[in-house]
Amino acid sequence: MHTYSKKRQTMENIRQYMQQVGQQARAASRLMAQANTNAKNHALENIATAILLNSAKLIAENTRDVAAAKTSGLDAASIDRLKLTEKTVKSMAEGLRQIAALPDPIGEISDMKYRPSGIQVGKMRVPLGVIGIIYESRPNVTADAAGLCLKSGNACILRGGSEAIHSNQAIAACVNQGLREAGLPETAVQVVNTTDRAAVGELITLKEYVDVIVPRGGKSLIARISADAKVPVIKHLDGICHVYIDDEADLAKAVRIADNAKTHRYGVCNAMETLLVNADVAAKVLPELCKIYLDKGVELRGDEASRKLVAQMKAATEEDWHTEYLAPILSIRIVANLDEAIAHINTYSSQHTDSIVTENYSKAMRFLREVDSSSVMVNASTRFADGFEYGLGAEIGISTDKIHARGPVGLEGLTSQKYIVLGSGQIRT
Amino acid sequence: MHTYSKKRQTMENIRQYMQQVGQQARAASRLMAQANTNAKNHALENIATAILLNSAKLIAENTRDVAAAKTSGLDAASIDRLKLTEKTVKSMAEGLRQIAALPDPIGEISDMKYRPSGIQVGKMRVPLGVIGIIYESRPNVTADAAGLCLKSGNACILRGGSEAIHSNQAIAACVNQGLREAGLPETAVQVVNTTDRAAVGELITLKEYVDVIVPRGGKSLIARISADAKVPVIKHLDGICHVYIDDEADLAKAVRIADNAKTHRYGVCNAMETLLVNADVAAKVLPELCKIYLDKGVELRGDEASRKLVAQMKAATEEDWHTEYLAPILSIRIVANLDEAIAHINTYSSQHTDSIVTENYSKAMRFLREVDSSSVMVNASTRFADGFEYGLGAEIGISTDKIHARGPVGLEGLTSQKYIVLGSGQIRT
Repeated sequence: MHTYSKKRQTMENIRQYMQQVGQQARAASRLMAQANTNAKNHALENIATAILLNSAKLIAENTRDVAAAKTSGLDAASIDRLKLTEKTVKSMAEGLRQIAALPDPIGEISDMKYRPSGIQVGKMRVPLGVIGIIYESRPNVTADAAGLCLKSGNACILRGGSEAIHSNQAIAACVNQGLREAGLPETAVQVVNTTDRAAVGELITLKEYVDVIVPRGGKSLIARISADAKVPVIKHLDGICHVYIDDEADLAKAVRIADNAKTHRYGVCNAMETLLVNADVAAKVLPELCKIYLDKGVELRGDEASRKLVAQMKAATEEDWHTEYLAPILSIRIVANLDEAIAHINTYSSQHTDSIVTENYSKAMRFLREVDSSSVMVNASTRFADGFEYGLGAEIGISTDKIHARGPVGLEGLTSQKYIVLGSGQIRT
Repeated sequence: MHTYSKKRQTMENIRQYMQQVGQQARAASRLMAQANTNAKNHALENIATAILLNSAKLIAENTRDVAAAKTSGLDAASIDRLKLTEKTVKSMAEGLRQIAALPDPIGEISDMKYRPSGIQVGKMRVPLGVIGIIYESRPNVTADAAGLCLKSGNACILRGGSEAIHSNQAIAACVNQGLREAGLPETAVQVVNTTDRAAVGELITLKEYVDVIVPRGGKSLIARISADAKVPVIKHLDGICHVYIDDEADLAKAVRIADNAKTHRYGVCNAMETLLVNADVAAKVLPELCKIYLDKGVELRGDEASRKLVAQMKAATEEDWHTEYLAPILSIRIVANLDEAIAHINTYSSQHTDSIVTENYSKAMRFLREVDSSSVMVNASTRFADGFEYGLGAEIGISTDKIHARGPVGLEGLTSQKYIVLGSGQIRT
């Protein structure tokens, strides 16, 4: 009974704390929406400077987190993501300066058109308001996300992984200093100071104070947040990406693209997980391509037809077509034609990124139009699906949703457009 | 016990039925996404023709609904909205022909830019997929919403008010005939055939099959749906709209605009509910303006300062600033300056539509930038906040959200943009 009421008390404290954080964020968001470009850029430069000057302190705080993570038995990959080095600290500062150099999206006016009534109507780009960002072990997300939200005129509430709490608080101190020095409200960027999971539950239901949630992390984190959130979520679920080699493909391009899409990096969401090959060219292209994969240690899982061409292939199961390996494993299927390729993709793809290799104009156009994914490509590696490669300058994540933002989300994805009307005394009649 | 299990059986039947409707809609959405402009326009024209040819049948079915509504004691306003006449049937058909005449938003390619890697990146406009629309007594929404979803390449599931079930089924028969004759899937538009409320609960949680929900109706309907939905909702909450008369206003324009914004129509979301007047011009403009209101039978509720100028004014309470009257009632407040006006609006406005009357450039610009509403106007009546007036051609609703669509939502609000990449064999290095 006693423990129960203590737990209830803790819950109540966290609720009150998050309410306060939310209120402060909402108030700060009103000031940030009016902040001029110069003040925002100064803040970004100041934060970068503070991070560089406090490099030793950041690394010392991070060392505490890493030590605790090791003691608690965190896996090696997570510890690797958690670790800050002089190099990663420098690149955090560099990232902030790059954001400062991007054009300010806020206040942009577009599409102003006169209407028969005499009013002129168009749109003005405005911040979303308050962004909640929930992420896992990487502490550099704290600086990144703060920078993107700041530049786009939003306030943000950051909830990093509990294993990175000291690192994140140290980075937050630099962010707050930079905001203060630029005359902007420190509460524009708040890092949640409790590692209690209940804080996440509160954050994603703060409808009054939070406009959108961006979860950055593994599939299970995102699925959990999406299920419970009352605030809209910009989701990035899995990346089951495909390359389809058409019978009219330039096979040299096909080999280069299919190799790069799989082997350039294995653990990333825009890596190819399933290769589809047209039956008419399979015998010509698969043996050469599979030799490359096998030389690089990629495990191959194929359908019956492709296993006849490449002996080292295991049998793919239905499960394989649904799987994002994020590893040196590739599933391969031979299809009769473009229709079968598109049908396979629209059935199994996670609607992230899919690419066709073909020299045929009509098939390229059909693929572009009919594949229902956030990025659809012709004759290019799926690895290009990325905010920097697309010229967005920076990226808060990749959305596999259709609502609001789709594909790589940059500064613009953190904004909205309101209508503006310029009149000279018009009334409706 | 028996009743309980019967109820459970009904729930289970509705769940299965809605699952089937959802599956059919998803399958139809894939075909609709590929439908060419010509087929979609033919379907719209065919539906318009079928509606006109079946005018007598529609009115007969509607008469059944109206009779039942009277028996069950539905209020007069709702019965008025429910009623179909020859004139409203004609305007339904006319509305569909107008949608046919609009440009097709689907497939539009924009912003194609070459990147240093050599790929060309831009966006292609695509349908959202499956739209669920939940509405109340007006049966013309069935034709309207079907037309907008069809033109934008979406499939839709329509759930009208139970009092309009026969009218809606009759309109649905015309819609299905029109789709069939154009070679498009009839299941692209499905009208839910049960009046059981549980169907709504199922529809708004069908995450796998429904991409967005658009509720059209009163505040309580929308609030209820938003609270329970698992699918994203394009919300239109209340319209607490303001006009601010600045001290540098052209007072002739101010009177014309403030009169029109309140009295052109009372029961609409873009009608002004609160008038703010700068203290320096209040004595000059309020008596003249209030005479117009009083002559038109508008009840006035003012703060202390304005009541000193107009004797017939009642005292406004805090509650008044929060109220969407949708009636011939107006609250009036005198403010010291633009800052106070903006602060009042950003506190009490429902972020729908707010307008300033001023000849001062800097104040107009500040108002446009700082008022956080879906439509912000200078020297124009709030009554212009409307899809037709803005040139969208048609409107599925007005969004007071910031995510995805803000302000009047036309065909574009029912679409998304995917990235497309045109390469010539590029890989990431």
